[in-house]
Amino acid sequence: MIKAILKKKISQRVVVNGHPWIFANEVNLVDGEVEPGDIVEVYTHDKKFVGKGYINPASQILVRLLTRDKNETINEDFFYNRLLKAWHYRQQIGYIENCRLIFGEADYLPQLIIDKFNDYFVIQTLALGIDKWKPAIVKALEKIFQPKGIYERNDVPVRELEGLKQQKGFLSAPFDTKITIMENGLKFLVDIENGQKTGYFLDQQDNRRAIQHIVKGADVLGAFTYTGTFEIHAAAYGAKSVLGLDISENAVAQANRNAVLNGVEKIVKFEAENAFDKLKLWAKEGRQYDVVMLDPPSFTKTRENIQKAITGYKEINLRGMKLVKPGGFLVTSSCTNLIQPDLFLEIIQMAAKDARRKIRQVCFQTQSADHPIVWGWENTQYLKFLIIQVD
Amino acid sequence: MIKAILKKKISQRVVVNGHPWIFANEVNLVDGEVEPGDIVEVYTHDKKFVGKGYINPASQILVRLLTRDKNETINEDFFYNRLLKAWHYRQQIGYIENCRLIFGEADYLPQLIIDKFNDYFVIQTLALGIDKWKPAIVKALEKIFQPKGIYERNDVPVRELEGLKQQKGFLSAPFDTKITIMENGLKFLVDIENGQKTGYFLDQQDNRRAIQHIVKGADVLGAFTYTGTFEIHAAAYGAKSVLGLDISENAVAQANRNAVLNGVEKIVKFEAENAFDKLKLWAKEGRQYDVVMLDPPSFTKTRENIQKAITGYKEINLRGMKLVKPGGFLVTSSCTNLIQPDLFLEIIQMAAKDARRKIRQVCFQTQSADHPIVWGWENTQYLKFLIIQVD
Repeated sequence: MIKAILKKKISQRVVVNGHPWIFANEVNLVDGEVEPGDIVEVYTHDKKFVGKGYINPASQILVRLLTRDKNETINEDFFYNRLLKAWHYRQQIGYIENCRLIFGEADYLPQLIIDKFNDYFVIQTLALGIDKWKPAIVKALEKIFQPKGIYERNDVPVRELEGLKQQKGFLSAPFDTKITIMENGLKFLVDIENGQKTGYFLDQQDNRRAIQHIVKGADVLGAFTYTGTFEIHAAAYGAKSVLGLDISENAVAQANRNAVLNGVEKIVKFEAENAFDKLKLWAKEGRQYDVVMLDPPSFTKTRENIQKAITGYKEINLRGMKLVKPGGFLVTSSCTNLIQPDLFLEIIQMAAKDARRKIRQVCFQTQSADHPIVWGWENTQYLKFLIIQVD
Repeated sequence: MIKAILKKKISQRVVVNGHPWIFANEVNLVDGEVEPGDIVEVYTHDKKFVGKGYINPASQILVRLLTRDKNETINEDFFYNRLLKAWHYRQQIGYIENCRLIFGEADYLPQLIIDKFNDYFVIQTLALGIDKWKPAIVKALEKIFQPKGIYERNDVPVRELEGLKQQKGFLSAPFDTKITIMENGLKFLVDIENGQKTGYFLDQQDNRRAIQHIVKGADVLGAFTYTGTFEIHAAAYGAKSVLGLDISENAVAQANRNAVLNGVEKIVKFEAENAFDKLKLWAKEGRQYDVVMLDPPSFTKTRENIQKAITGYKEINLRGMKLVKPGGFLVTSSCTNLIQPDLFLEIIQMAAKDARRKIRQVCFQTQSADHPIVWGWENTQYLKFLIIQVD
């Protein structure tokens, strides 16, 4: 097998902290002709075995490790065993019907995402080296789950950095890609073909339950509602009224269908509006809600824009806070890993100072546990979910 | 009213961050004769009103603020209103039967603790200035709740720093101080008179629910079990076997009574053992459990001993981790505010390195939300509760 030999001086990331990424500038030499996507063995400068992974000379991240075990062979069985182990883990922590079955690096399968929506599976293979194993992955899913359908949502720009084209389509016999899932006893439509990302945000499934008590009898405002999952939970948990805003007409249409599906269409209304503008205007007008919920899209994907993102998060939370009645609650999320938890809390604190409001933390959570966190692997810890009381 | 005037140069804590503590060395002068425990007004050096609070010249913390509102009078009504507001807050966030009704500083009532165990209330007044208002506090409780009993658990050494004596006893007509509460559908005995602190640790009530899935069918070991609440939850959630260790014979006896009360005495056993020693021995012997739970007492109450506490937490977690089967779980807590969350995670990471185990975060929580957190008020954030998968 082809060997990649690391330089003498490299960061602690790979060897000490066990991170699976090896950057091109950390590699001294590759001893042979590699085909992009090949499995290679990685060694330290003094010939200690580090691991095996897939290589892509076209990518800044030259190698992504799949195993640290010299005796483990990367073949069909390897993927079957990894998927089985990941499924076992989800069952142990209580995620059965719907879950992120594979969360890339955190499941030791870099750049592979698999979401399970009851009997349907959505796959993303975001690097060349994992894309090559798609048939093995599909075969493993078939063997473990006998799925009703498997779909590929590789319409993701990041694939182009790997020399892969964007694509989506069936990896099983075709099926109706508009499906319904149950979450916390509620029904939600998932548009596997055209929804955002894999069609549904499973990462907030536990957090949606966290609003259970505070919304009872409350007038609730939700912004960036997408398909209305938080808002429909609020209604089901006993809110008096819920208004959800999203800029996309499509999202609003699907949110309304979700409301009907759960029989809460008299309580929840959705409007296609720019939340930034509306929140500002309504704060000026002195509107007040018992609970305001913000779940904005990522404000940055690059480190260069981090200051802009901080300003954006601060501003939207300031506007949201102003709309909360004294003693009411702000429910706020941030989904970029570039804003780490402590920084997020600082931003909220700044917003509170500007709004001259006293705040107390009710709960502070991450993404659901079916998206495990490996400390120090920055991209595995990305979602912040916070509830504060705003006095 | 007597005025305390702050020095020109003081920390940001009080004026900027809203913290209620004013240290003696931050005060320039007190304009009159104060009786210890009196209510005084606090002003900045340039005569801006800061707040009103109680003074104790015998304490390093000279004044603890009760209000920032010049128009608010500190009288019986004040305490009634604060308690009512705190009760309203607990109801909003879903804590009805049992809760920490008043969490001192975080409820803007410094050094007052009130735990509600269904119809019974346990009070701690840990500073002279709040102790003086005990009759008003009892009156407010009677008016809001018509309690079956109120008890004072002021047998706490910290009171001596305030020139108060340690004492415990009834603040209502006497009642049987051995009561039963329901938590997460389970029954637990609370020994109001002789149990630790106020008789029961309400701060873990949400965290006990967090073990729900991982203990199914598992062999579970619990250390520092006190009255066995985590262990009995584990049995009720479907553990195959549970062994709980606590050094106190009394605690073990009560834990066994709790097991019988919940009909899980065939599944859960408790033994009076030194957990430090036993964990070390059993790790050496190669014993293995699916789930190991650690809930040790605080390893330090002072900053001077922090390094020793770090070593202690690392060592006990290392021992615990070694007893976890590959793919099993470690459930671990730390209850000292001197070990902040990030430091706690670092300690666990160090233990994992020493144990040569790969770990993934399942969940990381704080104390229950009935103990609210005010950021930057270090003593309001104290409990860390972590579940990791140990591979």
